[in-house]
Amino acid sequence: MRITIIGSGNVATHLATAFKNAGHPIVQVYSRDMQNASLLAYHVKAEAIDDLKQINPATDLFVIAVKDDAIEPIAAELAKYNKLIVHTSGATSLQTLQKHTQNAGVFYPLQTFSKTRELNFITVPLCIEGSDETITSLLNELAYTVSQNVYRVNSDQRKTLHLAAVFACNFPNYLYYVSQQLLTKKQLPFDLLRPLILETAEKVQELFPASVQTGPAVRNDEKTMASHLEQLQENPDLQAIYELLSQGIIKMENRS
Amino acid sequence: MRITIIGSGNVATHLATAFKNAGHPIVQVYSRDMQNASLLAYHVKAEAIDDLKQINPATDLFVIAVKDDAIEPIAAELAKYNKLIVHTSGATSLQTLQKHTQNAGVFYPLQTFSKTRELNFITVPLCIEGSDETITSLLNELAYTVSQNVYRVNSDQRKTLHLAAVFACNFPNYLYYVSQQLLTKKQLPFDLLRPLILETAEKVQELFPASVQTGPAVRNDEKTMASHLEQLQENPDLQAIYELLSQGIIKMENRS
Repeated sequence: MRITIIGSGNVATHLATAFKNAGHPIVQVYSRDMQNASLLAYHVKAEAIDDLKQINPATDLFVIAVKDDAIEPIAAELAKYNKLIVHTSGATSLQTLQKHTQNAGVFYPLQTFSKTRELNFITVPLCIEGSDETITSLLNELAYTVSQNVYRVNSDQRKTLHLAAVFACNFPNYLYYVSQQLLTKKQLPFDLLRPLILETAEKVQELFPASVQTGPAVRNDEKTMASHLEQLQENPDLQAIYELLSQGIIKMENRS
Repeated sequence: MRITIIGSGNVATHLATAFKNAGHPIVQVYSRDMQNASLLAYHVKAEAIDDLKQINPATDLFVIAVKDDAIEPIAAELAKYNKLIVHTSGATSLQTLQKHTQNAGVFYPLQTFSKTRELNFITVPLCIEGSDETITSLLNELAYTVSQNVYRVNSDQRKTLHLAAVFACNFPNYLYYVSQQLLTKKQLPFDLLRPLILETAEKVQELFPASVQTGPAVRNDEKTMASHLEQLQENPDLQAIYELLSQGIIKMENRS
């Protein structure tokens, strides 16, 4: 399948690389910034462009991997080529593309990407959706060329998934930051916590989080929680976070 | 070194096993519950006891790995044997033992343990503290027989570390649970999020959390945050958590 990549950010980079490695020719890479377009285009042996007027219509699929707000205007521009258009956004409905073309779908990789980190794409869950069954089947087939984990997820489900990913990834990462700040104040290295962080994530790869919850809240150990809150007395924001999350754990435990 | 294990919970089990595997004879395993004592004692080829009166004084080290509240009464009981006594608690000061003996130390493994999960103990950070330099050196040496990651951590630092571990482990695990609940409502499997959770933890093994933060809050993407809060409108607790953590991320970003 000939593929054109619109965008040059983290998602565009990882997807273009995965497609290329799976044997799909990448026709062009578009970015408003020619330097970024060139960098990725060189990497996946494609032509770099920084103007949508330079689009080569000899492609089978446009993959729009840009900021959410930019998806619709770009789709409006590309619709005239009558080729399949997909976006890669968790927070954007299929409807956004369907305003401009029925030849539309979603190809949402559920992972946290950094340009500087290599990643085994084969394990990345790909959530696909198409305007009709033919498109969905086509995207399904394409998805399996780059990943083992392909899911059919509709726009309503994907919206929830995107929210859930904030709780599963963005918020834990922030809490890692908080723990590092606490350590730094006492001249302790973050290395002390790294094995704990990894083990916590590895535990839920096979088990469910509720079954492996540890810590003072799940034991309803009020003495320890009071001591922790006292240690945080100079930081009311962290106290509030501590209280809310501990209450959540206590409720979770009472429910199960 | 001949070692006696007081306790039969997760920490006692993993420590006893690590000591045994490193070639240290385990003299006895004590637990109030004879069945638990026997199970662990059998595993590490030791004698099981359920009464402190049956303690064999022919040992070099008592490792107290019991609930925080039970540490002091047990230490009071064991002090008469004049052997080195350590506890394994993050939240308990060395002073708690020193009320009863100067032959005291701390041997705190910073990890989340489950009896059902095997763990490579060699990577577990061990935080040690002794009443004097001789004891600290001895514990340092002992620690390196079971782990590569040994740190000298005083009681004040350990208190902070214990709090930081709640932010790095217990709270993230609870957020995994929240994300799972959100998915379940839309008939989506938790498998969708597992690779994301693992990658989030793996990213900070070499990098620092602030440098790999992703998500709507770090971009100050108010539209997405408003949509997420709207999706949570039936759950004010989760809305409050969402707001607090997002505000935290925004502040972190402004600071760096």
